[in-house]
Amino acid sequence: MVKIAIDAMGGDFGPAPIVQGTLLALKKKDFTPVLVGKKSEILPLLPKRYRDKILIVEAGDVIAMSDAATDAVKRKESSIYKAVELVKSGEADGVVSAGHSGATMTLATLRLGRLKGISRPALVTLMPTKTGRRSVVLDVGANVDSKAEHLAEFAVMGGCYAEDVLGVEEPSIGLLANGEEDSKGNEVTKAAFKLLQGYRGFKGNVEGGDIFNGSCDVITCDGFVGNLVLKTSEGVASTISILIKDYIKKSPIRITGALLMRKVFKLLKKEIDYAEVGGAPLIGIKGCAIVSHGKSNAKAVKNAIYQAISYVDTGVNEHIVTRVAELKNKEV
Amino acid sequence: MVKIAIDAMGGDFGPAPIVQGTLLALKKKDFTPVLVGKKSEILPLLPKRYRDKILIVEAGDVIAMSDAATDAVKRKESSIYKAVELVKSGEADGVVSAGHSGATMTLATLRLGRLKGISRPALVTLMPTKTGRRSVVLDVGANVDSKAEHLAEFAVMGGCYAEDVLGVEEPSIGLLANGEEDSKGNEVTKAAFKLLQGYRGFKGNVEGGDIFNGSCDVITCDGFVGNLVLKTSEGVASTISILIKDYIKKSPIRITGALLMRKVFKLLKKEIDYAEVGGAPLIGIKGCAIVSHGKSNAKAVKNAIYQAISYVDTGVNEHIVTRVAELKNKEV
Repeated sequence: MVKIAIDAMGGDFGPAPIVQGTLLALKKKDFTPVLVGKKSEILPLLPKRYRDKILIVEAGDVIAMSDAATDAVKRKESSIYKAVELVKSGEADGVVSAGHSGATMTLATLRLGRLKGISRPALVTLMPTKTGRRSVVLDVGANVDSKAEHLAEFAVMGGCYAEDVLGVEEPSIGLLANGEEDSKGNEVTKAAFKLLQGYRGFKGNVEGGDIFNGSCDVITCDGFVGNLVLKTSEGVASTISILIKDYIKKSPIRITGALLMRKVFKLLKKEIDYAEVGGAPLIGIKGCAIVSHGKSNAKAVKNAIYQAISYVDTGVNEHIVTRVAELKNKEV
Repeated sequence: MVKIAIDAMGGDFGPAPIVQGTLLALKKKDFTPVLVGKKSEILPLLPKRYRDKILIVEAGDVIAMSDAATDAVKRKESSIYKAVELVKSGEADGVVSAGHSGATMTLATLRLGRLKGISRPALVTLMPTKTGRRSVVLDVGANVDSKAEHLAEFAVMGGCYAEDVLGVEEPSIGLLANGEEDSKGNEVTKAAFKLLQGYRGFKGNVEGGDIFNGSCDVITCDGFVGNLVLKTSEGVASTISILIKDYIKKSPIRITGALLMRKVFKLLKKEIDYAEVGGAPLIGIKGCAIVSHGKSNAKAVKNAIYQAISYVDTGVNEHIVTRVAELKNKEV
């Protein structure tokens, strides 16, 4: 049975939503959760009937959001350090943390190591599209100042993820640029374009709007750009929702209309709610690490755990190693 | 009276929306439009009573969207070339074009020249925010691979634009990065941060979400990033609107709700409709050039003309020259 190490202490709201999310996940999936953190805080949150289904590993230290990511490697008693070590020692197959994302990424990269052929792991997110299918966007924040080779590796990893984890057949892969024409891009994306030319599924440059229209399964970009795209999207969605609420409040007719449309807003919220996705896999490491939002609620934690289980189940890592070798032979 | 040269031929839909937009603008503002293009196509669109209020300059050639921007300098009979030349010769104060944006930017930069102290002109857009006030974002596509000095100049120009054209007192200026902390950013933004430290209104790094929450008046970024942010925002807004429409169609109750909420959607559309803004000023040139969307309707053209008029009226260019000198002295 798949074992998932869960950093019980890392989130902004302490262990409660993490433990609740774990319990929710257990209701639907067969796996063994290993909660890592302060037993004294975790145990009171566990109903008796779950106690034999869940393992607890004691960890007395917690890395706070305000701590430096670089300190993480020294904080060997921290919940995230210990959770990652469980994957390293083979006692767990994957790790989920809603804690300090820099610390999680640093530890997962340094302690578990990178996959053969991968120079930089990347953070993956799934974006909603018009078609209902989600698009894979990477890197959304593991790296800044990526080189062309890194972008090409991201493209390969994103393709494997779409194929194996999301079940997309022959996923199309795009390079995020300031226009669709081959001549568009900045220095780095232009060089990445050349490296990817002819690679399976590579369809060339795509634009910001393509992330959401479902025309491309995998969108490749530098982590600086990916972070901006992600935060911008959240900003637009939240502004639209605030504007709608403001406008509604101004008239009883509109309030009635909004009530009749409640279901619509609920569906929309579900579509664009990050909690539905749960977390961002750090792809390219030997193992599986899911980076969740610090503000994750129980549902987000549950979905992050589901993500870890599918990631482990699919063997996407072996696939990446084969494909990245394929890409690099092509270059020679 | 302010004279605005208007490229009558450049838009995707031919001269009709351009001429209609010009007529709309004339109803509310006192200015002299100079329509540049094929007289034979423009004249039939002009009601007789307007003929003495509008000048027409014949131009037999049109630069198509598929033409290379670099050819623009050779196409001296094209409508956009001639429109820019009117500004150069002082026969017009500003130019508006919904044609080939690369050609417009190239011509405006090369034929009119850059302001003293500015190495690269930038394209400015206005984004809607939660507060109702629009934020100034630049560069949204005039340059890729900007250096730190360029970003610093963009920041200065954006500040002058917010102050003079939008009337914002002591505008706050942010640098778009992958996090708010001073340590965030990529190589280029980190160097730009240092150049801007201590500059009036500079508040450090801002994130993608800050574009829409109104917390910052001016958002500075490289044109590659700015283009992505812009296209991503449009993509999110359009996806949300499509999802809402899809969900609504599925039940009569929701249709009723939507009807009662019609006004809400109309207000929202107005807020996020690019036609409300009209066009993007190319800032940093000796003169005034407004780059409009190829798909501009009459309203967008009207608003682009209004933008040109306010730009010319405010004397923002002189302000930029003073302020950029201030910034550069600071650096010494």
